[in-house]
Amino acid sequence: MDSIRVFAPATVANVACGFDIFGFAVDAPGDEVILRKKNTPGLQITKIAGDGGRLPLDANKNAVTVVMLKFLEQIGSDQGFEIELTKNMPLGSGMGSSAASAVAGVFAINELMGKPLAQRDLLRFAMEGERIACGAAHADNVGPSLLGGFVVVRSYSPLDVFKINTPASLFATLVHPDIEVNTKDARYILRNEVSLKNAITQMGNVAGLIAGLLQSDFDLISRSLVDVIIEPVRSILIPEFDTVKHAALDNGALGCSISGAGPSMFALSRDMDTAHRVGAAMRTAFAGAGVSSHLYVSGINQEGPRILS
Amino acid sequence: MDSIRVFAPATVANVACGFDIFGFAVDAPGDEVILRKKNTPGLQITKIAGDGGRLPLDANKNAVTVVMLKFLEQIGSDQGFEIELTKNMPLGSGMGSSAASAVAGVFAINELMGKPLAQRDLLRFAMEGERIACGAAHADNVGPSLLGGFVVVRSYSPLDVFKINTPASLFATLVHPDIEVNTKDARYILRNEVSLKNAITQMGNVAGLIAGLLQSDFDLISRSLVDVIIEPVRSILIPEFDTVKHAALDNGALGCSISGAGPSMFALSRDMDTAHRVGAAMRTAFAGAGVSSHLYVSGINQEGPRILS
Repeated sequence: MDSIRVFAPATVANVACGFDIFGFAVDAPGDEVILRKKNTPGLQITKIAGDGGRLPLDANKNAVTVVMLKFLEQIGSDQGFEIELTKNMPLGSGMGSSAASAVAGVFAINELMGKPLAQRDLLRFAMEGERIACGAAHADNVGPSLLGGFVVVRSYSPLDVFKINTPASLFATLVHPDIEVNTKDARYILRNEVSLKNAITQMGNVAGLIAGLLQSDFDLISRSLVDVIIEPVRSILIPEFDTVKHAALDNGALGCSISGAGPSMFALSRDMDTAHRVGAAMRTAFAGAGVSSHLYVSGINQEGPRILS
Repeated sequence: MDSIRVFAPATVANVACGFDIFGFAVDAPGDEVILRKKNTPGLQITKIAGDGGRLPLDANKNAVTVVMLKFLEQIGSDQGFEIELTKNMPLGSGMGSSAASAVAGVFAINELMGKPLAQRDLLRFAMEGERIACGAAHADNVGPSLLGGFVVVRSYSPLDVFKINTPASLFATLVHPDIEVNTKDARYILRNEVSLKNAITQMGNVAGLIAGLLQSDFDLISRSLVDVIIEPVRSILIPEFDTVKHAALDNGALGCSISGAGPSMFALSRDMDTAHRVGAAMRTAFAGAGVSSHLYVSGINQEGPRILS
């Protein structure tokens, strides 16, 4: 096999109460990478589509190729590749755009090199892409994009990541308003300290969400999708946040909050029809404030990256 | 039925990572209450054993009778009672002594009055006993003492308490050193703010412990029994804390930390034999520092209060 085309899914990180520790994958959107082996060493990005010309073509600066270079260094290979990258979601969307590209890249190169590493072991390479793109090697986007499903990052040092089963009918609504938030900025406005009281409240919701998901207790999931630490700060960066959130809840969403660092917002619902209704209501609420938006509705993607051809 | 004798179990609150939100019940020790209806209104404490004469006999000041008075007010009854209380664990032990007494009292009076309230609805009365005894109406001891099992307090406002199934073979070791820590003091030395970094670490462990318990994943339980917020502060009140903890871990405990506000320490193990070996090692470690101690080993008590006669 000399070439491969791979899709890796977008992800919703934080999931209300789980800042830096929770994330789940969706079926769409997602990024695509095409890799072709070449006869000379080195990585050459031949094309990037969908980024508005903003991502670097320099292989030492693009998250996808940085991840591939780390991978090649690890396995001790000087195989060269041509890379085409297709971004199907905007940069700075809060949907794990850089993570999806990095995961697609490292999954693709592992396949073309004959799978020298297990899929799980690709995680630390993909995290290096996050360091390039966001300034921090976090795992709450690359984890679910690589492994699929709902992922918990229990610990970063040592890295301890595991999947949680979710109810089969659980559906996600993801709405991206056409504005941009820089992840570094969104992280910068957070306080370095939280009150013990808020930490306790958040811990209660973390416990409730995990128990609710594992036991398919939708009421408990709903009561636990509450964020008293991050959302009150970051929501100020999103126009009409409260209106959009209430539109989701009024239309039957279990909960609604910021996807990752925003400005995308997500909701979870107990079935597909509700998820679509919730999405329409959220778009209408954004539109009422003069903000156009894109809507994605899907189940929880259990698969992670997928070979397209 | 004119009289009843009720046992309510001791409890381990916090359970390492779950400050104010986790607690579980054990089979022993526990407190006992005897109630006898009398022909005149009012509550009369006729005897308290095991408290070294330190608990008030005044019905308006003792946590047990305060809880009963609230209960009688709620159901609109002026039935009078004589009360005997037997404390089978020291005050200020960190084993939920006041909670066990309050739960035994409110469970007993509900039985004698013909069960006007569901067992679950007794929780808010028992919490009033905690307000009298500890200065705060917390639920992480009264919750598991009343409901049995491993209990999560997801929220205090509104009160949202639920039980988590635990692996059948999970065993608890509880060691009480013969020193005393005042719960109010133990709370007072805590900081009101925690770093966001530590809050994230703690949230990861909360998620891991719930997932580990529900999935009977002992390794995950073990990795998650870590407290980076409370233990580093409160452990200074316990002589040889680190030595005792390492003795537990070296002998196969899944984890070991402070029970409630201390000074009792608990460990969890994957079977009874390990729990006994761990307990012996913890006692030996305390003894090495000249501190005598009491040891209790049991499964997770799933029953809560029990009618003895």
